[in-house]
Amino acid sequence: MDSRNGSVSETPLDAEIESFFDSAPPLKDSAGIIKKLKEFIEYNSTPPRKGSPRRVVCVTSGGTTVPLEQRCVRYIDNFSSGHRGATSTEYFIKAGYAVIFLYRRGTFQPYCQSLPEDPLLECFECSEDSTIQVRQPHTEAVKRAVSDHHAAIAGGHLLKLPFTTIFEYLQILQSIAMSMKDLGSLAVFYLAAAVSDFYVPWKSMAEHKIQSASGPLDMRLVQVPKMLSALKKEWAPMAFCISFKLETDSKILLEKAEMALKKYRMHMVVANELSTRKEEVTVVTGNEKILVCRDKTQADSDVEEPLIELIVGRHSAYVKDSDL
Amino acid sequence: MDSRNGSVSETPLDAEIESFFDSAPPLKDSAGIIKKLKEFIEYNSTPPRKGSPRRVVCVTSGGTTVPLEQRCVRYIDNFSSGHRGATSTEYFIKAGYAVIFLYRRGTFQPYCQSLPEDPLLECFECSEDSTIQVRQPHTEAVKRAVSDHHAAIAGGHLLKLPFTTIFEYLQILQSIAMSMKDLGSLAVFYLAAAVSDFYVPWKSMAEHKIQSASGPLDMRLVQVPKMLSALKKEWAPMAFCISFKLETDSKILLEKAEMALKKYRMHMVVANELSTRKEEVTVVTGNEKILVCRDKTQADSDVEEPLIELIVGRHSAYVKDSDL
Repeated sequence: MDSRNGSVSETPLDAEIESFFDSAPPLKDSAGIIKKLKEFIEYNSTPPRKGSPRRVVCVTSGGTTVPLEQRCVRYIDNFSSGHRGATSTEYFIKAGYAVIFLYRRGTFQPYCQSLPEDPLLECFECSEDSTIQVRQPHTEAVKRAVSDHHAAIAGGHLLKLPFTTIFEYLQILQSIAMSMKDLGSLAVFYLAAAVSDFYVPWKSMAEHKIQSASGPLDMRLVQVPKMLSALKKEWAPMAFCISFKLETDSKILLEKAEMALKKYRMHMVVANELSTRKEEVTVVTGNEKILVCRDKTQADSDVEEPLIELIVGRHSAYVKDSDL
Repeated sequence: MDSRNGSVSETPLDAEIESFFDSAPPLKDSAGIIKKLKEFIEYNSTPPRKGSPRRVVCVTSGGTTVPLEQRCVRYIDNFSSGHRGATSTEYFIKAGYAVIFLYRRGTFQPYCQSLPEDPLLECFECSEDSTIQVRQPHTEAVKRAVSDHHAAIAGGHLLKLPFTTIFEYLQILQSIAMSMKDLGSLAVFYLAAAVSDFYVPWKSMAEHKIQSASGPLDMRLVQVPKMLSALKKEWAPMAFCISFKLETDSKILLEKAEMALKKYRMHMVVANELSTRKEEVTVVTGNEKILVCRDKTQADSDVEEPLIELIVGRHSAYVKDSDL
């Protein structure tokens, strides 16, 4: 069957995935990452004397890059500030989850969204006795960033893993999923990263910088295999899975979200339109379309607060059902 | 004549440039940028009671992006950390120049290169009485970043202008060049930014996100017109101009640098090879090839110190010659 019409083709997909991973450049410090994951999951899934083990969510955030040259000078990038993933991480931690935050280097970090673009140069000043001080009006934002972020890391509830390329992203995601497999229904994937649909296979890539002297540049990019299928079928089949669909054209958005829900057997798909994504999203499930809006009566409210509340509720029901 | 063989074609280039600017999306706050430039140049070019006017250098830094969609989700990016531009800016200011720093958002800033990737979260801690303090061993690096950066801005010797896309970069560069025209030979262009060679003309660009369902993605990118020619011929013909050539293949590097020197009538071309660019560069002039290396007997030395020293010397000679 042709994957273009929305149905899942079995063998070709597995072969595509295998070939993607086989041809990817090896992940740096893969053993170190797996060790960190193991310790983090072990720590959080060991129940305290009274109580139950902590649920673990993998939040992916920011966009992936696709290198166009092996010694990478040029690459295709997917735009994403990482705001959604960073804010959602805070609400998941507040709701008692442990978070594995798989983020694009340089994107927004949890607890840091209200800071200006270049916090060090904009939020600090050197006083006359040459000590470094926080400038008004940034005092509260800086305090929150430094202390809440530190508390989450020191408490063992936040593990941050950075990526840049699509190769790194998918390799680390696979390691995370396989490490979370034994958590069964307590595991959640909240896949907010903007992942490239197209890539240039590593082996067919130019080794050196593409030369500009010879007229226009024609490029052929091939589709990235749909890893969500592998995640659901093999890597962590019991996990509760939420994926995202971003479109700039609202006319096709819900249709594409429903298609993704069925095709990849997600529990929820969060449909965003680029221009309104900070105000509202539509959560598509098997039998519902739920519009989630930020509380417009509050100036500093966000759409992530009601969104994570909804997800935590649905995940709780899923965990309960799985226990029966 | 064909521009592919290294010679300059007259009319077609002008037409290409005109069409590039005509089709570019309008620059945001263009009037505000021009006002800032005017004030900065006026302030620095007014000689103090005793002494001569300050020389002004435009340092470009970081890579440009090429949007692939009008409502931009995907784009092609040119890799550049901005390290060269940021470090060079410090040495130019130290040598008495005023610097217009045209930089890619998110890249390295002057006086900040020895800080870790995420300075706010890594360099600060919240003490028990809940004040924010700098953590060891970052005290000196943070102090330097905050105080030297502040001194350069407050002293009126550093003007920072950010860009993201190739459209923004070239539009702002044109405004800078035209504002600096009257400085004559006192003006310097130090073009260290990694500028895209290819782009998708705004009007032929997809309005919405490119859909991935229909197989591989074929793209045709056209060459960005060679703006260095326009800079030298029209925008600021008397300015002292240094451009950069980066290659991953050392075999073609010097040849390409010499070609650029002649084609765009630069005063100097700095030839970098990607893997050794922090250790050494070769400066190509009309009759010399000068190897510039960092002082390897010092652990924290950099190649920008001798490079800017060389450039300042050559620029001084050029100013003197122009006065004759």
